[in-house]
Amino acid sequence: MRKEFVVKKKKVVIIGGVAAGPKVGSRIIRLEPDTDVTLIEKGEFLSYAGCGLPYYISGVVKEQKELMSTPVGTVRDTVFFQSVKNVHVYNYTEALSIDRNNKKVNIRTLKTGKEKILDYDILVLATGAAPINPPVKGRELKNIFTLHGVEDAEGIKAFFSEKNAQNVTIVGGGLIGIEMAEAFHMLGACVTIVERLPQILSFLDEDIAVLVSKHLLEKGVKVKTNTTVTAFEGDGKVEKVVTDKGAFESDIVIIAVGVRPNVILAKEAGLNIGQTGAIEVNEHMQTSDPSIYAAGDCVQTRNLLTGKICYMPLGSTANKQGRVAANNICGKKDVFSGVLNTAICKVFDYGVGVTGLSEKQAKKEGYDIVTVLSPSPDRAHFYPTAKPIMMKLVVEKESRKLLGVQSIGSGDVDKRIDIAVTAITAGMTIDQIANLDLSYAPPYSPAMDNIITSVNIARNKLDGIYEAISPQEVKEKIERNDDFIFLDVRSPQEYETIKIANTMLIPLGKLRKECENLPKNKEIITFCKISLRGYEAALILKARGFSNVKVMDGGIMMWPYSLIQK
Amino acid sequence: MRKEFVVKKKKVVIIGGVAAGPKVGSRIIRLEPDTDVTLIEKGEFLSYAGCGLPYYISGVVKEQKELMSTPVGTVRDTVFFQSVKNVHVYNYTEALSIDRNNKKVNIRTLKTGKEKILDYDILVLATGAAPINPPVKGRELKNIFTLHGVEDAEGIKAFFSEKNAQNVTIVGGGLIGIEMAEAFHMLGACVTIVERLPQILSFLDEDIAVLVSKHLLEKGVKVKTNTTVTAFEGDGKVEKVVTDKGAFESDIVIIAVGVRPNVILAKEAGLNIGQTGAIEVNEHMQTSDPSIYAAGDCVQTRNLLTGKICYMPLGSTANKQGRVAANNICGKKDVFSGVLNTAICKVFDYGVGVTGLSEKQAKKEGYDIVTVLSPSPDRAHFYPTAKPIMMKLVVEKESRKLLGVQSIGSGDVDKRIDIAVTAITAGMTIDQIANLDLSYAPPYSPAMDNIITSVNIARNKLDGIYEAISPQEVKEKIERNDDFIFLDVRSPQEYETIKIANTMLIPLGKLRKECENLPKNKEIITFCKISLRGYEAALILKARGFSNVKVMDGGIMMWPYSLIQK
Repeated sequence: MRKEFVVKKKKVVIIGGVAAGPKVGSRIIRLEPDTDVTLIEKGEFLSYAGCGLPYYISGVVKEQKELMSTPVGTVRDTVFFQSVKNVHVYNYTEALSIDRNNKKVNIRTLKTGKEKILDYDILVLATGAAPINPPVKGRELKNIFTLHGVEDAEGIKAFFSEKNAQNVTIVGGGLIGIEMAEAFHMLGACVTIVERLPQILSFLDEDIAVLVSKHLLEKGVKVKTNTTVTAFEGDGKVEKVVTDKGAFESDIVIIAVGVRPNVILAKEAGLNIGQTGAIEVNEHMQTSDPSIYAAGDCVQTRNLLTGKICYMPLGSTANKQGRVAANNICGKKDVFSGVLNTAICKVFDYGVGVTGLSEKQAKKEGYDIVTVLSPSPDRAHFYPTAKPIMMKLVVEKESRKLLGVQSIGSGDVDKRIDIAVTAITAGMTIDQIANLDLSYAPPYSPAMDNIITSVNIARNKLDGIYEAISPQEVKEKIERNDDFIFLDVRSPQEYETIKIANTMLIPLGKLRKECENLPKNKEIITFCKISLRGYEAALILKARGFSNVKVMDGGIMMWPYSLIQK
Repeated sequence: MRKEFVVKKKKVVIIGGVAAGPKVGSRIIRLEPDTDVTLIEKGEFLSYAGCGLPYYISGVVKEQKELMSTPVGTVRDTVFFQSVKNVHVYNYTEALSIDRNNKKVNIRTLKTGKEKILDYDILVLATGAAPINPPVKGRELKNIFTLHGVEDAEGIKAFFSEKNAQNVTIVGGGLIGIEMAEAFHMLGACVTIVERLPQILSFLDEDIAVLVSKHLLEKGVKVKTNTTVTAFEGDGKVEKVVTDKGAFESDIVIIAVGVRPNVILAKEAGLNIGQTGAIEVNEHMQTSDPSIYAAGDCVQTRNLLTGKICYMPLGSTANKQGRVAANNICGKKDVFSGVLNTAICKVFDYGVGVTGLSEKQAKKEGYDIVTVLSPSPDRAHFYPTAKPIMMKLVVEKESRKLLGVQSIGSGDVDKRIDIAVTAITAGMTIDQIANLDLSYAPPYSPAMDNIITSVNIARNKLDGIYEAISPQEVKEKIERNDDFIFLDVRSPQEYETIKIANTMLIPLGKLRKECENLPKNKEIITFCKISLRGYEAALILKARGFSNVKVMDGGIMMWPYSLIQK
């Protein structure tokens, strides 16, 4: 009878020590300090900030150990995990296979090759993701890197410590590719981004992506879209990148065409793999085997708006999922419902942020939408640190709900993205957002915050107060040689500095008088710098009996095509 | 019969030309360009940014006209309003009385004294607010200012252009007083803030207000709380400020003890005045007379959380209310539901923001709450621009809804306040907030954003995972000479640099070994820099059988009392 009183410690084995894994381990020990937690990590390093690697390469972050420290500077090494967290760690150790029937994991120490069997009650897969390595000819040449772990970063840094001002080619114009472009530029390199698709940052709409490309170009980074790399050439080390649009010299190549979840272990153990190729989990982060949880870059999740399965690996999500997994493992019901595909990256002076659905995604999903392009300063315009941000909103017509926001510029884009994340998650309509009591003082925002101005534009459109036209539609009209008046209502000084070709100038203040000379029934498209005066102009013309007036969204600031500059 | 076809233009008269008034006028013309809109303004200037005056005085904003320009630099003068907005403006003109029966307003041109009667179909009161002028002896002396209009700002600037390094006294430690303290400090003055209440910024909880006071003190600004000014003395001009705690020299005095809505016109016309002393309006911004609307600093509104009437004059609210009033005037139903009493101000290197209910307000309203103090860096801690922010959260226990956030520090407090504004407006629980897909990259936020970390602390508390104690409660224990161990678990280096008196040091990494020497049944209160290690320490102790362990909220960073510094 005494046997009942022998409490067996619950054994949890965690495979993967970067983000989700350590989170699960620490949280379990906090909730149930008696649990026997073991963490297996293939590399040397634990709990390091992979997202910080581009900044380590550029020198913005000085020391490697900063990436694996706590906020107060303690390095999270194996000793730390044992002494502070009471988590037993095997680093330099690989998990070879899972025996689900007997709840055992076979591991191997990489340095000695010694194998060992660990028992588990609960197993957690936090195996992460690995860079996709396209089978391009010449891939084996020296100085062709991916950016995954600390080792890659050290390799790249070592290369630059020997030579200066290199030609760098980045294959892939996604988040990591773009972050790396800035890092290499800071190291004095001449950077070319090669992207197979018609635009960089494919999660953005093309009109927004073009504005980011323009900024990269201003900074001296070459962007080659619609271009596919066919081979790398060189004598031992890479010297040339060959593409379907010609070849060019390159001393170093970074391949950043995305990542793929590490699921071999899960697959071989017979766990369900989802349609994205990542591990299938329920909202408790449980795999198809109730004794096995998974979290982080190796799992798929759900888009909160569409309800559809998606794969969106991110350090922030990994941390949240790790906490949810640990809570459920300790019997505390918790759910991770999904994501909005929020992403942000720094691109030189610009922040580039997105959440929810882009225009193209929303249309693909069958939503009936209206979009808004709205550029404006991020603080009171008279406050010296005010900087512009350019926003694009996607709103569902029928429900008037905000579906997505893209925001770029040198101002605080992250704040507006995070307000949007919260509003979209709550299912807010643009009418509710318009009167949010957001914090206002000149050093922080305009009296009507950028997101409020933007939703008010959407309300005006939905309420039929004026008719808008997108820059793309205007461009198409120009290319079709449509007969319309393209009316710039800025001041003569502004017009002299920068303008769009073949426009007519009537400054807003003179429009009431001078509009009498315009033909009443011809199509007129108005705009200004940000299209606020363009909007006023359209209303003035409408009031004077002009029957076919539209405002070009976003004004000259968000015109993604060529401009004539003084 | 032809009479029917004579369309009479709708006449709208707006009294007040600063924020809400011009917004109402412009919006009406946009919606119904045929309306006859007249704007009456007592001063010279229209549509100027009153919130920008402290920055104009300090020289951060260089020119007065920047405060009354559009974002593209057009000055919003009477000509602008007529030519661009088609709003007829009488500046230097006072509204004397309203004849509601005959729908007429009697106005007087200040320069000529000439009176005139204007007819209206709809009248809009945007009469704003005026600084409270306490009847202190000596108030009539020279160089005693309030800060209301551009004229006050010019007077203060003129004073400083003549003399340098003055002794400045600011009476009132509210938003404007604090903003002015920084402005005067930038002008080289020696600044003293005198506040009648026990703390500055009365909308904050005292523990947070003290941290702001500490920052002011670090910058050389003296803060005298619990101090009432009884007289100003001097020969013609102010030389001395006399208080109930003694007198001191002062060359210039700014009275910033709050504002009072301008309601004389409304009161004399027999409109309902609310319990706050401001004009009563419904959610369409209509007064008790359906033909008269009111908006901005002269009206009261509702607190969205408590449902109670409040008076919270702000430029952002004025703009939103102006738009709602105009929409309703033009037959487009729209509502302004209320505010969360959000406020923000810049205090030297700190942003100080608040939304929703503070701890004291929530308790006064009868909520059963839990609070959180949580300091942490506002970006990935390894990113060089990361700066600390200190947050206080107020959460309702039963519903687990977020009720309020206070946030101060040199990091981006405004972003976290605005996320909270959106979440509180949507009625989100802390469990929903914890998994918001907020934007993450090292230059913008930590992997777990500060607000997510903070709500997770609240969840831990509500779920009974650990027991917390506030710095105030600890202070009271110390003063009562309670017998407890006050356990600092930081590193010896941190301890040497700064510490709280009478604490015991056991670094977290050594606690598992060294805790055996501690008495098992004595009360132990743990903390560290931010109390994350303090939390780990408490869990370790609990697991070792210590029965009475608490974590001090917010750690040393949010300890508002004295510290021993090296």
